[in-house]
Amino acid sequence: MVMRKIVISIAGYGVVGKEFLRLIKEKKEDIKNKYNLELVIGKIIGSKCAIFSDEGIDVEELLKLSLGSMGLKEYCCIKNINFSSNCELIGDIFVDCTPTNLESGEPALSYIYEAIEKNMDLFLASKGALVKNYKSINEKVKEKNLNIKFSGATAAALPTLDIGQICLPLTTIKEIKGILNGTSNFILTSMIKNKMGYEETLKLAFNKGICEKNNNLDVSGFDTACKMVLIVNNILGKEVTLDDVEIQGIENVTNEDIKKAIENDSVIKLLGECEVNDNKVKLKVSPKYISNTEQLAKVDYNNKAIVFNTEEAGEIFCSGGASNPRAAAYSILKDILNAY
Amino acid sequence: MVMRKIVISIAGYGVVGKEFLRLIKEKKEDIKNKYNLELVIGKIIGSKCAIFSDEGIDVEELLKLSLGSMGLKEYCCIKNINFSSNCELIGDIFVDCTPTNLESGEPALSYIYEAIEKNMDLFLASKGALVKNYKSINEKVKEKNLNIKFSGATAAALPTLDIGQICLPLTTIKEIKGILNGTSNFILTSMIKNKMGYEETLKLAFNKGICEKNNNLDVSGFDTACKMVLIVNNILGKEVTLDDVEIQGIENVTNEDIKKAIENDSVIKLLGECEVNDNKVKLKVSPKYISNTEQLAKVDYNNKAIVFNTEEAGEIFCSGGASNPRAAAYSILKDILNAY
Repeated sequence: MVMRKIVISIAGYGVVGKEFLRLIKEKKEDIKNKYNLELVIGKIIGSKCAIFSDEGIDVEELLKLSLGSMGLKEYCCIKNINFSSNCELIGDIFVDCTPTNLESGEPALSYIYEAIEKNMDLFLASKGALVKNYKSINEKVKEKNLNIKFSGATAAALPTLDIGQICLPLTTIKEIKGILNGTSNFILTSMIKNKMGYEETLKLAFNKGICEKNNNLDVSGFDTACKMVLIVNNILGKEVTLDDVEIQGIENVTNEDIKKAIENDSVIKLLGECEVNDNKVKLKVSPKYISNTEQLAKVDYNNKAIVFNTEEAGEIFCSGGASNPRAAAYSILKDILNAY
Repeated sequence: MVMRKIVISIAGYGVVGKEFLRLIKEKKEDIKNKYNLELVIGKIIGSKCAIFSDEGIDVEELLKLSLGSMGLKEYCCIKNINFSSNCELIGDIFVDCTPTNLESGEPALSYIYEAIEKNMDLFLASKGALVKNYKSINEKVKEKNLNIKFSGATAAALPTLDIGQICLPLTTIKEIKGILNGTSNFILTSMIKNKMGYEETLKLAFNKGICEKNNNLDVSGFDTACKMVLIVNNILGKEVTLDDVEIQGIENVTNEDIKKAIENDSVIKLLGECEVNDNKVKLKVSPKYISNTEQLAKVDYNNKAIVFNTEEAGEIFCSGGASNPRAAAYSILKDILNAY
């Protein structure tokens, strides 16, 4: 068989973008041998500048340098090339590693439309553009018969879409629920296990590097809601938006609530829930008491989980999938491998 | 797109075989609309006779009749056709629903070789032939570039092979472990929860229809060992056999062991384990103490579970997938849908 060469444009060169390059480099021979694919990085677009190369960027060299646009500039210096402000996508695949922006969906949204225009397959890790414009993106992608995958935006290494699509096709799904946000689960688990207050726990999570300074999307329940919207649209073929989700975060969970949970041999989890009745869906995100006898109660700290309740295959529970840049990057690579 | 017509031969018309037909009938329109496939049942081979039809067997009529060869004979009477002792496979797909036979692998083994000879894709639910002749079957299938899938033989609706192949391709797998046999897990769970003895629990399981009279494969650990062999061979690309597995069943678990587990806030589970070191595997099946703080401890009664410990994607834990004929039949249908 002839080796297939695939040229990739990446937008966003933060920790996930860089880890994705590291994986491409580490797995290069396996990808060639087992998938007959040669993945070439044609372009990387940072927040301040971009680099590109027709023969493929020298990933090994780039990985030794800084993160972000700084690293891209250093690369230009070393290779004695001019860094570019030209952010046009090139090649066969667009990989999105930009930060999630729920207001405008940018910068991912513009790149997505450009990629579709250029008949590129899409592998997305940020949620904003997808959640805000799912219907329009989906229609354009179908029209052009392109691949679109976004495990990176739906709990990454925890298989959510894969289980729905591959393990449960044509089942009658009665309910989907999940613990889908690592930061809020870390906070709730710490409150229960260490009997600490909300603010104190938040500080601990920040100091441990588990949550960022701006954790509003996490604790408000919006990150969970985004993931539920994408999972439900993808697996149940719906076109719901954030407006269809009743959202309550964990900011108001009190020490009293925690005490009550412990007294009842329970825990509190921020749960995303989707009930399906007569092909209609009802979506909700809220903190819930869960008995310690349930599997979901054992999903601790920054772990995540998803449960599918089906008529034909019973209940499928899946947890794990480390919350770290390497696992997030891996979920993009896995999507690419499964697409070809 | 042109509808693709696929003619199926089924061997084994027990509860799983019949449930498979029911699913084919129920999902007929969905299979056409979403997969562009028309699945036609061309032949059914029971233990005592066979029926076949060039235009496809009238599944709706057949489902109203008895189970097993009796039902096939009734069908012949109603349709006014002669029942046949001709057991040759016909069509594009061979679906195996015969009972597992670890001695000879028959009758599945002969059908499998015949199907390969006839360039038919293979969807297998019994373990004997595969476990005994994995290497030879795999080589022949590869040579002819045929599809072979056997979710039905590896914990059915609990996704084991799917997770390994689709969710974790090219990961460095450090360990695979699982609770893979529903009967033995039912017995151990009942012993712990109801403080009942081994023999008494076995009787309960039999009365509840959870285990069969001949449960030797289940309680001896051999069923778990078979599943581990198939999972390890398929996902890690090995060619291990039952001889490579250290096997200990649950027959010798005593009331003293149970007492000790409860005192230590633990349970006992029949665990299949595969450690991977330097690309070498070490397989073992044995009853193990597991702390109640672990996810595996919450897999109760006839539920099953599998855990993959990977370098790139962390730990993936999956449990559930009802142990019943419908879920087993569904796992065959799902494999067919994913193959085309």
